Amino acid sequence: MCQLLGMNCNTPTDIVFSFTGFATRSSEHGDGFGIAFFEERGVRLFVDHVAASVSPVAELVKRYPIKSRNVIAHIRKATQGHVALENCHPFVRELWGRYWVFAHNGNLKDFAPRLHAAFHPVGDTDSERAFCWLLQELAKHHACMPTVEALTETLQELVPQLSCHGTFNFMLSQGDALWAHANTRLHYLVRQSPFGVARLQDEDMQLNFAELAGEKDRVCVIATEPLTVDEPWTAFEPGRVMACVNGAPL
Amino acid sequence: MCQLLGMNCNTPTDIVFSFTGFATRSSEHGDGFGIAFFEERGVRLFVDHVAASVSPVAELVKRYPIKSRNVIAHIRKATQGHVALENCHPFVRELWGRYWVFAHNGNLKDFAPRLHAAFHPVGDTDSERAFCWLLQELAKHHACMPTVEALTETLQELVPQLSCHGTFNFMLSQGDALWAHANTRLHYLVRQSPFGVARLQDEDMQLNFAELAGEKDRVCVIATEPLTVDEPWTAFEPGRVMACVNGAPL
Repeated sequence: MCQLLGMNCNTPTDIVFSFTGFATRSSEHGDGFGIAFFEERGVRLFVDHVAASVSPVAELVKRYPIKSRNVIAHIRKATQGHVALENCHPFVRELWGRYWVFAHNGNLKDFAPRLHAAFHPVGDTDSERAFCWLLQELAKHHACMPTVEALTETLQELVPQLSCHGTFNFMLSQGDALWAHANTRLHYLVRQSPFGVARLQDEDMQLNFAELAGEKDRVCVIATEPLTVDEPWTAFEPGRVMACVNGAPL
Repeated sequence: MCQLLGMNCNTPTDIVFSFTGFATRSSEHGDGFGIAFFEERGVRLFVDHVAASVSPVAELVKRYPIKSRNVIAHIRKATQGHVALENCHPFVRELWGRYWVFAHNGNLKDFAPRLHAAFHPVGDTDSERAFCWLLQELAKHHACMPTVEALTETLQELVPQLSCHGTFNFMLSQGDALWAHANTRLHYLVRQSPFGVARLQDEDMQLNFAELAGEKDRVCVIATEPLTVDEPWTAFEPGRVMACVNGAPL
């Protein structure tokens, strides 16, 4: 199975700390990794078909503190689709003049939807197929970009048609909001004032956010498994689509 | 004005040598850079809104020899559109289950086409607008991916509708072929056996391809201005859409 990491913030924040812990996990998830950073409407996507623990691209991400309000990262353990660049998450498409970024952890069985519109998979994963279907259906429901609330409602309607095929933990963003859903495993944490010290679960590294963060900063971190000890991570309620805006669940 | 660099090869080749010379030119083109590498059907896209000469992302590209059969790079001097990540070339979209990569040098005046289909610009450049219009029209002409020859013919029909608006030098690839067109400036070079020494125009660096290249390797390099001395660069015939496959013009 793959692992997911997402971040939604009220001010542009770098993800170096969380990504460092997350990338360590790639020893067991060695079939590629990817990370997408929104910067306003633009997206920076880094993908590699080697493990994040050895990839020079992952090394750059750990050293270059890119500040973003919405980030989605993924480390891959191939279930469907061969090991290739085109099968690395996150996937990116454009809809309504905005980029959409999607990453999935899970395995959808016998999922072969009719893709009759503008979105077709380039690779051969169930995940990219699910993303294309989601965008196709969103485009049918709304003529142009609706509010975050309306999108959340539509996603909540659509997602059961995917999650009935198997494990479907995913993250999705268009740069304003970050949506996440789990039917098995996903955890989130809202990091806000009063800040304290956080220690990574997977690496010998800690940060004192009281010294680093501004008083009003707020960050929602979402991950397959909690990334830090001494912070109050919450397990996702299965089946619910959660939207995060400005560093907190709506 | 911006500058373009493209490469099409018969075997996966790294572009470190050419990109090193090309990136030097970014002192005068400091409004961002980007480079896209096809690896089979997948694309690796690196963009930054700072100059290639100072960007850590460009530094990675110079050090990490990514092997690819089709590469498109761009350094930006903003004419239309503000300096932002979403306005950095190359742009990427999906059509017929393949990624398409596009970069443009020039300035299209009063170009406001009706974009009624699946492709909408995210940023505010004339270039991304032109790319969206091209894909929209390609999708109208062909129901699924046609041959390179058929695509070249369609592009040759469509391009005058863009180039009548101003300077329109561009490169386009879907991973199999690289198309290029100039109505002002673009040069190409086919590097093949017998190989010799090439010296960069902009940097004190030379390579002996006789020692590095395989007997059957063939590379077509396309750039706004010739990148090397002692090699026979050819200026593009204005108005003609050239398709390169396996390292040579069709």
